[in-house]
Amino acid sequence: MHASTHVTGVIVEYNPMHNGHLYHVEQARLSTGADAVVAVMSGHFLQRGEPAILNKWARAQMALAQGVDLVLEMPVAYSTQSASWFAYGSVAVLDRLGVVDSLCFGSESGDIAALQTLSTIIADEPPLLQEYIREELAKGQSYPRAASAALVRYASGDAGLDAALAASPNNMLGLEYLAALHKLGSSIRPTTITRIAAGYNEERITHPKIASATAIRKATLETGLATAEPLLPATSYRILQAEFAAGRGPMRWENFAQTIFSLLLRATPAELSGYVGVDEGLEHRLLEAARNAQTVQELISLVKTKRFTWTKIQRALTAILLGLTRDQQAALRMADGPDYIRVLGFTERGRRLLRQATEVARVPILTNLPKEKSPMLELDIRASRLYAQGYPIPQPGAPQWDYTRRVERFDQQVKADKKGPQL
Amino acid sequence: MHASTHVTGVIVEYNPMHNGHLYHVEQARLSTGADAVVAVMSGHFLQRGEPAILNKWARAQMALAQGVDLVLEMPVAYSTQSASWFAYGSVAVLDRLGVVDSLCFGSESGDIAALQTLSTIIADEPPLLQEYIREELAKGQSYPRAASAALVRYASGDAGLDAALAASPNNMLGLEYLAALHKLGSSIRPTTITRIAAGYNEERITHPKIASATAIRKATLETGLATAEPLLPATSYRILQAEFAAGRGPMRWENFAQTIFSLLLRATPAELSGYVGVDEGLEHRLLEAARNAQTVQELISLVKTKRFTWTKIQRALTAILLGLTRDQQAALRMADGPDYIRVLGFTERGRRLLRQATEVARVPILTNLPKEKSPMLELDIRASRLYAQGYPIPQPGAPQWDYTRRVERFDQQVKADKKGPQL
Repeated sequence: MHASTHVTGVIVEYNPMHNGHLYHVEQARLSTGADAVVAVMSGHFLQRGEPAILNKWARAQMALAQGVDLVLEMPVAYSTQSASWFAYGSVAVLDRLGVVDSLCFGSESGDIAALQTLSTIIADEPPLLQEYIREELAKGQSYPRAASAALVRYASGDAGLDAALAASPNNMLGLEYLAALHKLGSSIRPTTITRIAAGYNEERITHPKIASATAIRKATLETGLATAEPLLPATSYRILQAEFAAGRGPMRWENFAQTIFSLLLRATPAELSGYVGVDEGLEHRLLEAARNAQTVQELISLVKTKRFTWTKIQRALTAILLGLTRDQQAALRMADGPDYIRVLGFTERGRRLLRQATEVARVPILTNLPKEKSPMLELDIRASRLYAQGYPIPQPGAPQWDYTRRVERFDQQVKADKKGPQL
Repeated sequence: MHASTHVTGVIVEYNPMHNGHLYHVEQARLSTGADAVVAVMSGHFLQRGEPAILNKWARAQMALAQGVDLVLEMPVAYSTQSASWFAYGSVAVLDRLGVVDSLCFGSESGDIAALQTLSTIIADEPPLLQEYIREELAKGQSYPRAASAALVRYASGDAGLDAALAASPNNMLGLEYLAALHKLGSSIRPTTITRIAAGYNEERITHPKIASATAIRKATLETGLATAEPLLPATSYRILQAEFAAGRGPMRWENFAQTIFSLLLRATPAELSGYVGVDEGLEHRLLEAARNAQTVQELISLVKTKRFTWTKIQRALTAILLGLTRDQQAALRMADGPDYIRVLGFTERGRRLLRQATEVARVPILTNLPKEKSPMLELDIRASRLYAQGYPIPQPGAPQWDYTRRVERFDQQVKADKKGPQL
């Protein structure tokens, strides 16, 4: 690696990594002219409040096999929160690494200038926008919808702004990335590429080779992994097959049913409302549902309202599973950003990049766990231990894998031999 | 029922009800000349800190089929505690029912007068006895052993006392029953019958038709229920068969493994030490073991020391599973005794006795759950809900069975047709 190396960052969940993600990585590299791609990837629990279908090591392997050079773990403190915190935590990881020049995200818009202009509103948090959000929430909207509607209203008053952008979910997430870069005073240059074929929330499979991760997981669970094969890079498919065969997937809420029900049934409403995201009476609905539901799916259905979205409920269940109380969350000092960068895997190029980053990173880069661990890092380890309780076949030593597993490595030569599908 | 009715009480776990228990019920009736037998039975969690092999309704059915006329539930607040609280809670239930004349318990001794003299020491709690207990504990003894050894020492100084009695476990439990009667100022007359054939803690089967419940459970789990058939009344055997076939047993700690491990792995040491029975550093040993063990059995083995006995660890796990903190326990006001009597089942004779008791009982007798529930009753319901999470096959509606199941009834005619084994 030398001074002229260009490095682009992507923010991902890879749940699992599919052809659309592969396209994104390729486009990120091409559009930015990057020599290396760094991915900040959620660990075991994801933004919509779900356990990942496969553990973070398996998902890092997928990423490395498909062109990502360095996979960093997004702390669970951020990975299971609102779009705003999710964006802030992951952008901060890229920023603090010190070697990333650009950030490339997918959006419906594809117009970075228009998004950036709009994003300054989010970063500035004007009182009127906050008022609009409160008004929208008062209508019984969920927070993401309220935030989107409020921004559309706020920006509509200004001819220089393209207010309609705020109505699309990936644009909204992009705006949060841009606002995070702004708040962090980051020198990372943002870029965006237009998302193709499948919407983020699209549940059906409509394109022969591209579908959303949601649609792929649904197909996998309902009709078997083979159904999803055309939608996945060959490596992703092989890794899913192998992990399922070894009893390490598919991971989903039902795998944690006994614990979730027991946690709810043993708690008082006051205890429950101490967990992050359990508010506005959600604790009572959860307790009531736990007494009557047979599955976690059914539990969530019973709790769901317009305000208590599926995502909000799942995030609350994640906090309850992890035992993450408001007090503990306060101790994480999330606004200060992650106080470490955790490496999940690298290619040979990624390894060289990492060596370079070690000189300039603003927080410690961890390939092994240190003896002294910050509350944020402790929470990641706790999340891994709890995730390990959901494997369909018990995995000896799994609660300690954060300590015992080595960083995933991927050989360039092997990679060169593998071809992705033609898109 | 008329004024001359004699009613004897027994205190039981029936885990499961076997031929030795049948012998005890028959002897209790014969030796006291009782017309009716009332059993106070542990609910879903037992004195050694274990889930019962079958739920309380199935175990109540066994009791009713074998000569018990009325089965009352011992609140879980007492049923999973030390011998002293276990005895106090269950004797208080019998006392408050208002219609029980005698209490009949098994002991190694069989000498009620000698036991009663010795029991006054326990009831009086002299400072020197307390000091002896502390000394024995300081040697690293478990609490039950320390209490036993201290009483032997204390009583040895007095020629009028048979100190050796205190060395046997069933005598010790009997002494606690006697002390409880004394503390409660109860008019219930204590009687004891000599235990036959199998010791309480005996793990092997040595008598052809009598074995301890421990030996029976071990045989059932290791070599199948059929092995235990000769040791069980026919009804007990049939109920065990039916419950196992329906996926409601065998219940044991392993059925709760995911929840136990998750509860331990998500807790901080400070949180854990807030649960009843988690003290003297047990929290650290539990946390360490949870990271390394594969099964609950293994977990307990890893934690076990001379001081931290199997029973103490299991009781701690019960408190952790139920979420029973020291603060919550304080709110139960255990020293005041149970504030309700919960009916699990009755025969026709039991039903008549219950009608009579309704007039004289000192606390409400519950055949249905009331709208207003005391903390102690809430804990029983919580225990049932958590127990329901451990069924091998999920049982729809099981978390609500405390509300929806009717009291077990047993027809006298059916009972008369059933013969127990000849002992």
